[in-house]
Amino acid sequence: MADKNNHVVIMAGGIGSRFWPMSTPECPKQFIDVLGCGRTLLQLTADRFAGLCPAENIWVVTSEAYAGLVREQLPDVPERNILKEPCRRNTAPCIAYVSWKIKSVNPKANVVVTPSDHVVMNVKEFQRVIASCMKFTNETDAIVTLGMKPNRPETGYGYIQADLSVSSARNKEIYRVDSFREKPDLATAEKYISKNNYFWNAGIFVWNVSTIVNAFRVYQPGIARIFEGLIPHYGKEEEQELINREFPLCENISVDYAIMEKVEEIFVFPAAFGWSDLGTWGSLQEHTPQDAYGNACIGEHISVYDTHNCMIHTTQARKVVVQGLDGYIVAEKDGTLLICKLSEEQRIKQFSE
Amino acid sequence: MADKNNHVVIMAGGIGSRFWPMSTPECPKQFIDVLGCGRTLLQLTADRFAGLCPAENIWVVTSEAYAGLVREQLPDVPERNILKEPCRRNTAPCIAYVSWKIKSVNPKANVVVTPSDHVVMNVKEFQRVIASCMKFTNETDAIVTLGMKPNRPETGYGYIQADLSVSSARNKEIYRVDSFREKPDLATAEKYISKNNYFWNAGIFVWNVSTIVNAFRVYQPGIARIFEGLIPHYGKEEEQELINREFPLCENISVDYAIMEKVEEIFVFPAAFGWSDLGTWGSLQEHTPQDAYGNACIGEHISVYDTHNCMIHTTQARKVVVQGLDGYIVAEKDGTLLICKLSEEQRIKQFSE
Repeated sequence: MADKNNHVVIMAGGIGSRFWPMSTPECPKQFIDVLGCGRTLLQLTADRFAGLCPAENIWVVTSEAYAGLVREQLPDVPERNILKEPCRRNTAPCIAYVSWKIKSVNPKANVVVTPSDHVVMNVKEFQRVIASCMKFTNETDAIVTLGMKPNRPETGYGYIQADLSVSSARNKEIYRVDSFREKPDLATAEKYISKNNYFWNAGIFVWNVSTIVNAFRVYQPGIARIFEGLIPHYGKEEEQELINREFPLCENISVDYAIMEKVEEIFVFPAAFGWSDLGTWGSLQEHTPQDAYGNACIGEHISVYDTHNCMIHTTQARKVVVQGLDGYIVAEKDGTLLICKLSEEQRIKQFSE
Repeated sequence: MADKNNHVVIMAGGIGSRFWPMSTPECPKQFIDVLGCGRTLLQLTADRFAGLCPAENIWVVTSEAYAGLVREQLPDVPERNILKEPCRRNTAPCIAYVSWKIKSVNPKANVVVTPSDHVVMNVKEFQRVIASCMKFTNETDAIVTLGMKPNRPETGYGYIQADLSVSSARNKEIYRVDSFREKPDLATAEKYISKNNYFWNAGIFVWNVSTIVNAFRVYQPGIARIFEGLIPHYGKEEEQELINREFPLCENISVDYAIMEKVEEIFVFPAAFGWSDLGTWGSLQEHTPQDAYGNACIGEHISVYDTHNCMIHTTQARKVVVQGLDGYIVAEKDGTLLICKLSEEQRIKQFSE
């Protein structure tokens, strides 16, 4: 049964520029049915917490511009749980805001924080892992991160170095973190992979609300002071106006830099549930069923001839014929068309400008 | 000054299946601004006869389905000059119908017949050639064809073999035809090119109306009988109904087979005015200004990177980015997208089905 103290925070303020033209500033990838399965990434994210907490304990942090999309796509989430950042300040201020807010509602809240635009293939295993982490943080003042068991020397992710010599007494699958490592170069990534104690940092965190609020107080007193000062106003009429005034004063900093790398007692749950941050067209291709020639096609009436290893993604197009391509992205959205080698996709941001 | 006996017949009933998706059965290529110049191929065709005949002497033969497009695109052509074929029967019945019709209006008419979907780069030279041919047919009972001086061993065109040993006494640029040759294989085309008396058959004909009507009477008595029988009805209320009943009885045959190859006295005017039948995407690429890398781009906001020798043609797309292609067609129309090697474009008809 869903524990009434369990809360889920979905961070949905990103702009997904690497997935242009599918993802645009007007409608970033978390609001799109990227996988062509009938549910947007945001909906899939909420779906995978089903049974873990009541709907009124789901929180979404986004921007004013996207609040309408969130309401539309997650109609069961109460309006008051959709928090609107007046500007983008990375994940630390985002998490601080929602944490103080949750604490104002339930000081015993036990919280998972997750990005809104990742994919998880094995939802059952994901739920087992999250439940296990939440049991742990319900009983301890631990900060737990999820570490993804890597299968390739990916240079696009940060890594978590774990101390596998001894697991927690309370949970045999949870270990201490030795260090967080930024996105490595290929040689370093290969070194990490050759060992067994490096994991991808999925940006999914579990803690009880007192733990994270205290961590902000200790390690980010400037940010803590802002949200502490707003305590009398959470849930009141004036809240948004005050947030609009105060939030921009927060430092622009990720929660990894602001908290994770500073806290001494931090834990990792190494897990494998078919996770991807879907950060690139290439990763979408990997996570989409492919035909016998390695083509991943998402969209209506796509026909391919003599075509291999392509990622074809269309939304408005009524009919698409692709002949003679190997290793390309073909993406169409609302009258915008991209044809680009998968190997050159880091240039997409430039193309979109 | 435009001679009031001069008439122009534009055949505009084709369906342009090789230019899919730009050209569709609903709106074939003659009704499209293929060159991105602001005028459709039909309009460019009519434009290039400016000054040669009055607007009320321009005739368009098309189908019921396209009559609206013709009226819209050629508002100066009188409604009564737009002839509607009830079904497609190739060029011989088309030309017979319009010839009897013109004869009913003006038995002294001097006529040019032209396809609606070709391009001519040098309009001034085109007009000089046509005027010269019409002067000739005004004074003689000759059938004159236009022969295009070939610059490559094209296997997609029929050829006209001329007897260049002696030109007409009345016009030094006009010669007798020795034979018409169907689309050759490459070896044969190369043989033709190595001589100087083989010309591409452009499908443009000049004659006075008595000559062509008499030719039908002699060589296609079945077709002639049908249109002869309708003489009391041309221009009357019942014309379309009778045409709908009788026209389908005509043999399905091209004017080349039905008349040209049978007539003994037939002439050719070898000319060079930058002609193409625009039969393929490749020929459109050749006739469109190219960037330094051989890309021909027609459409709004097309950006290319590392791309060579491509034909990019878009109509509705708002923004197009192409990276890393060489020798491809990228064509978009109304939500339909084609990406195909130029070398494989003969398969487009299959792709469109």
